[in-house]
Amino acid sequence: MRGVSIIGIGQSPVGELWNQSARQIAYTAVSAAMADAGITTADALFVGNMLSGNLLDQEHLATLVADFCGLHGIEAAKIEAACASGGAALRIGTMAVASGFHDVVIVAGVEKMTDTVGKDTTAGLATASDAEYEALHGVSFVGLNALLMQRYMYEYDLPIDAFAGFSMNAHRNGAHNPNAMFQEAISLDEYLKAPVIATPINIMDSSPVCDGAAALVLVPTERVHEFVTGHHRGAVQILASASANDTLAVHDRKDPLFLQAAQLSSQKAYQQARIQPTDLDVFELHDAFTIMSALSLEATGFARRGEGWRLGHEGEIGIDGRLPISTMGGLKSRGHPVGATGVYQIVELVQQLTGMAGANQVKGARLGMAQNIGGSGATIVTHILGA
Amino acid sequence: MRGVSIIGIGQSPVGELWNQSARQIAYTAVSAAMADAGITTADALFVGNMLSGNLLDQEHLATLVADFCGLHGIEAAKIEAACASGGAALRIGTMAVASGFHDVVIVAGVEKMTDTVGKDTTAGLATASDAEYEALHGVSFVGLNALLMQRYMYEYDLPIDAFAGFSMNAHRNGAHNPNAMFQEAISLDEYLKAPVIATPINIMDSSPVCDGAAALVLVPTERVHEFVTGHHRGAVQILASASANDTLAVHDRKDPLFLQAAQLSSQKAYQQARIQPTDLDVFELHDAFTIMSALSLEATGFARRGEGWRLGHEGEIGIDGRLPISTMGGLKSRGHPVGATGVYQIVELVQQLTGMAGANQVKGARLGMAQNIGGSGATIVTHILGA
Repeated sequence: MRGVSIIGIGQSPVGELWNQSARQIAYTAVSAAMADAGITTADALFVGNMLSGNLLDQEHLATLVADFCGLHGIEAAKIEAACASGGAALRIGTMAVASGFHDVVIVAGVEKMTDTVGKDTTAGLATASDAEYEALHGVSFVGLNALLMQRYMYEYDLPIDAFAGFSMNAHRNGAHNPNAMFQEAISLDEYLKAPVIATPINIMDSSPVCDGAAALVLVPTERVHEFVTGHHRGAVQILASASANDTLAVHDRKDPLFLQAAQLSSQKAYQQARIQPTDLDVFELHDAFTIMSALSLEATGFARRGEGWRLGHEGEIGIDGRLPISTMGGLKSRGHPVGATGVYQIVELVQQLTGMAGANQVKGARLGMAQNIGGSGATIVTHILGA
Repeated sequence: MRGVSIIGIGQSPVGELWNQSARQIAYTAVSAAMADAGITTADALFVGNMLSGNLLDQEHLATLVADFCGLHGIEAAKIEAACASGGAALRIGTMAVASGFHDVVIVAGVEKMTDTVGKDTTAGLATASDAEYEALHGVSFVGLNALLMQRYMYEYDLPIDAFAGFSMNAHRNGAHNPNAMFQEAISLDEYLKAPVIATPINIMDSSPVCDGAAALVLVPTERVHEFVTGHHRGAVQILASASANDTLAVHDRKDPLFLQAAQLSSQKAYQQARIQPTDLDVFELHDAFTIMSALSLEATGFARRGEGWRLGHEGEIGIDGRLPISTMGGLKSRGHPVGATGVYQIVELVQQLTGMAGANQVKGARLGMAQNIGGSGATIVTHILGA
């Protein structure tokens, strides 16, 4: 298997981009990544996206984006794994290069969730759950996460502010990310007074509905020197790429408070990269809801069961902490354009590992992990990158 | 790059499967393929599907299918490339094995297009075209193909029965396929009297709206002997796997009557397999509309421009002809559950190459090609298999 490296990154700002359609948002990210890599064409484009068919009446999205970016005659396919679509697209792009089928591959993630005329974005997000056994009964996606958070608080006898640290950390970091949707820090008081949207989840526990796109350029590690010239900040290698699934419906899990697939995919990733969790300098986790941050930290080996919330509470997750997470704002503050999120995470890891993270730079970061979660933990993709 | 072989195939009957949801139809195919391969688990499942988000309000489909098939802890992702989703999923599955990331990969295609409550399947199919520049103006998918057929007939001064041979061949072959939607031959008179649905396309030129699923089990060629034991009919090797795209909108093409992407992807495939078109014993082409059969034969090197229709007219495409096509009924007679079609084509090629095609067996078939087309020629995936 050939090693795979990232030589270009690009992203659009995240927000309510009412004056741009999906193809335009994707173009912003793809063209930026191509310019960053110094390429004018590619062998393939894999696009992570969840909702274009449901919300935009547009399938065949990868060829549409390729077409709009002037990439004709190449391979193009859309990859869908709910909110893990971006991470899944990177998995596929990695396999395309590792296998030798392609040398220059663009991986993009794009989602257009606002201003979708005549469509219901909340219902669209519920398509990540089981349409016949969950969504049919009216449970929304935030509703499913609220059930998990409620149970977690009950099991471990936690106060309502137990999760505040995750949200405050995300907003503190997002304040310095020019592409973040929310660029302002929040106080504990603001967290506590935030409107509840599905008990006990308040609006500060929850990532926003938004639009955005991010993109990466992959090449074989053995060919990096042909692309990375003097002025380039250097490539980042994909040291591990792994995915695991679980039951789709939360009610089918023996223990809904343990993310089995997060454990499986991160263990595979640790093995591939030959590292321990403690070796990591930064961890971009999937903080779609604060409860997911706690569960993710427990399943990936950073906290014992029922103690993931403590890392946020005790401030260990800040830029200067033991394990910096959501360093560019995470899903909460940068925003969560669902199918694009997994690619944003990687773009931000590359920024950290190449010293381009500005005010949010984790000093001396050399090894980072990103974990992208689809559904309520049903599909979990983990990547480890090394500078 | 490791060689990749197919050791198991499975399919559901194609038709209006009103009493089964997508997961159940997929289960029929996946469980049959697993039994055929003699496996009880796998490393990954890639599902080709186009319309689950739009018509079924169900995304996250690959993990849903994996879950329903008892495949937990594995990688799962849905691959979408409009009607080429099945072929695109096989591309990804092939890369997964070729790269060394996985050893046992299931590739499935599934589509549920009938009995979709409150949804419009014709509008769903139009999501393969450009939502903002084609579908918005009311052009349906059959409408786009009708424009191509009209222009072709005008350019080459053809009578209305020029395309009859493709439809009659498909129905003649489908009559002997127990999984085909339409299991009866049709006469020229029946073709000529068929109701017109979008001038000049009549109902016998057009593949039907239907449900179905097909599945394959892939392993590294070097490990085939571990799986294929005495009673097994033998594996089939994937000799070539290639994909190419074109502009999404037909009006953006310099020459809408030439399938540039079909030429590109087939040329790549011929090179990979180191063969000439004339070496092929069977060709499963994408006869969603009879005009597509003619254009496909011209772009892949079997006929000169404007003469693809002659192969159908002159009977060279029958089971005993020079180039048998649609040997198990093709999209017209077996049916076209869109995201599943590309996988059905491969299942049928494997049947032909291992002597399991029954009354439709092409004698001595050793080398076959399948071509799967998304949109009106915007994404085209070609595979060549060898026994």
